[in-house]
Amino acid sequence: MGTKSTEAPLRKLMGPGPLDIHPRVYQALTSPVIGHMDPAYFKTLDRIGDQLRRVFQTQNRLTHATPGTGTSGMEACVANLIEPGDPVLICVHGYFGDRLRQMAERQEADVSVVEGEWGRPTDPQGVKEAFQNKGYKLIALVHAETSTGVRQPMDDIVRLAKEHGAMVLLDTVTSLGGVEIKVDEWGLDAAYSCSQKCIGAPPGLAPITFSDRAIDVARNRKHPIRSWYLDITLLDQYWGSTPRVYHHTSSSTLNYALLEALLLIEEEGLQNRFERHLKNHQALVAGVEAMGLEMLVQPDYRLPTLNTIRVPEGINEAKVRGYLLETFNLEIGAGLGALAGQVWRVGLMGYSSSAENVLFFLSAISRALAVQGCKTELSAGSDAAMSLLNA
Amino acid sequence: MGTKSTEAPLRKLMGPGPLDIHPRVYQALTSPVIGHMDPAYFKTLDRIGDQLRRVFQTQNRLTHATPGTGTSGMEACVANLIEPGDPVLICVHGYFGDRLRQMAERQEADVSVVEGEWGRPTDPQGVKEAFQNKGYKLIALVHAETSTGVRQPMDDIVRLAKEHGAMVLLDTVTSLGGVEIKVDEWGLDAAYSCSQKCIGAPPGLAPITFSDRAIDVARNRKHPIRSWYLDITLLDQYWGSTPRVYHHTSSSTLNYALLEALLLIEEEGLQNRFERHLKNHQALVAGVEAMGLEMLVQPDYRLPTLNTIRVPEGINEAKVRGYLLETFNLEIGAGLGALAGQVWRVGLMGYSSSAENVLFFLSAISRALAVQGCKTELSAGSDAAMSLLNA
Repeated sequence: MGTKSTEAPLRKLMGPGPLDIHPRVYQALTSPVIGHMDPAYFKTLDRIGDQLRRVFQTQNRLTHATPGTGTSGMEACVANLIEPGDPVLICVHGYFGDRLRQMAERQEADVSVVEGEWGRPTDPQGVKEAFQNKGYKLIALVHAETSTGVRQPMDDIVRLAKEHGAMVLLDTVTSLGGVEIKVDEWGLDAAYSCSQKCIGAPPGLAPITFSDRAIDVARNRKHPIRSWYLDITLLDQYWGSTPRVYHHTSSSTLNYALLEALLLIEEEGLQNRFERHLKNHQALVAGVEAMGLEMLVQPDYRLPTLNTIRVPEGINEAKVRGYLLETFNLEIGAGLGALAGQVWRVGLMGYSSSAENVLFFLSAISRALAVQGCKTELSAGSDAAMSLLNA
Repeated sequence: MGTKSTEAPLRKLMGPGPLDIHPRVYQALTSPVIGHMDPAYFKTLDRIGDQLRRVFQTQNRLTHATPGTGTSGMEACVANLIEPGDPVLICVHGYFGDRLRQMAERQEADVSVVEGEWGRPTDPQGVKEAFQNKGYKLIALVHAETSTGVRQPMDDIVRLAKEHGAMVLLDTVTSLGGVEIKVDEWGLDAAYSCSQKCIGAPPGLAPITFSDRAIDVARNRKHPIRSWYLDITLLDQYWGSTPRVYHHTSSSTLNYALLEALLLIEEEGLQNRFERHLKNHQALVAGVEAMGLEMLVQPDYRLPTLNTIRVPEGINEAKVRGYLLETFNLEIGAGLGALAGQVWRVGLMGYSSSAENVLFFLSAISRALAVQGCKTELSAGSDAAMSLLNA
């Protein structure tokens, strides 16, 4: 007995996500479907909450998986915390900061923006100046900008927000589970992520966490949130109350897979996992640079999870991606928005962050460039990577 | 190598959904994860669109699977088609009609309601009177009310809507794939469903279809829709345009499973599938009634997919469900809202609509009632069911 739906090819996924998932996560997907109001399933939801608290490094009671992709998590945060007319400050230095801005504008908020260069983090000076002119209910920013590969330093901006009494909403889509996030220590009010990047599960769920202050804000809105599906007070009656109240038909399939992925993180250990992501990233960068290619982001701000490599002069970037896909079944990401045509995005996240993938990528990109007449030094690249992989 | 996430028991699912899924659908869940912008994956999305058009019986170009549960499909329809101040008419004769009303009110629409008794369909006379008093942009109603087991006859209400120029939005959550839906012939403007009931896939996706008129209404809104995640114009740029524009990270896992379930429907044949659902439903009803139990809904309006059985006088309905779950791993549904404590909801949908499940249920409920001192005539019930199952 075979399926008929799946002539789809077996890819090696090294784009911005989804990434390859661990065989144990595939196995969890075949766990028997169970009802969303089954007492045994509630235990699974509790375990997921506990595991997500560990990964977010928070005690926040309200720590769930929203029933949708990472974007549903972004919308759950924005739409619950922001009301029409609310003054909010959005840091935009990439595609996903801009998506936050668009969502806040759709809530008819009074939106101010600190614009930054794509490929650099937001400058705290810009945030400081914004707070000098105006008070804000909330500042929203992206910890790991998936479009540029930039890691945003948090200290100065969070300190400024706290000084001015603003809530902090953080996008951790490309960092949670691969780069340290300290929700409580940093004093974040809300954060969201996705299941398919550093967490290592398939797409379809969005981890979120709300502080008690954020819950209060959502509960005491003047205008009811328009969304019924993503109303955090209703979601919380299902995920977090006793007795649980039916809201939506939770996908046991996706949640079993998410739990399995989270258990793999626990087994590895969070710190070990961060170190693995960092080591493989550094090896990839060393290899890429020794081959004569250039990274977009300055060393201090590079994400260990998503590597943005500049497309060399005269190279058709789409042809390179097409060649990698056709020849090696290898997916890497294109540039998005302002960086379209200028960079490739190479993900090393979750199960995909491995020495094998680093070395495979270097060989494959070298060949793809050679086909377009661009010679790179693969031996030098491989040697540089090997030395950091301790091989 | 085992998973660690899944001590969860193996249930027999006969509630309002999710239901048991076919082994081929489980197998499809383990198809390799693939990127949401992979050309090979786009072919899968196209195949899903084609299959959904067949099941909805429509030529509507915009026929997708929304990235969320059935409720996300409801919200995608309501939030895209209804603007603040719009006069809309909602037929409420159960929990999900009421959810439609709540969603329309959150859109700040001018909401009128035709209230009906829970357990009966909406009376077209009430709709006629409503149209005599006022013009409506849209009428929303539930084809298969999951909370009551009522099938709503469509002819008169749709005719009234057409006469008065109102759009028609239909909830087909508990009918699509199990009971005939003719989107084009009936002249519907939008409809939504879920993946986990008669379609036979796991929860997490919501089939939707929009007529060209509905697309125009969504495109020409005066006030932009607040939701970015469920903005049908953005979703359609991903599902339905050339080239496709990134919007969210589509879950290949869920979509492969949905496609496999839809292919199983095609192999069985839609009419055969409707007949199977009807036959098993009739056998269950005959059995239940011969055992001395009573159905909630009058014969003409019973859904073949969801059977509501009255709880006999003096019986604690929760204890019966608890006994079935603990003793037989059998899940059936409780009453919702106005029917809480008064009925059980027994689903026979998709792969779960089988002679085996009918007979198993009759034996199990007879035993569960006997334990509470309520004697039923199982032999008579079984004989009555058998005769309709041609056994």
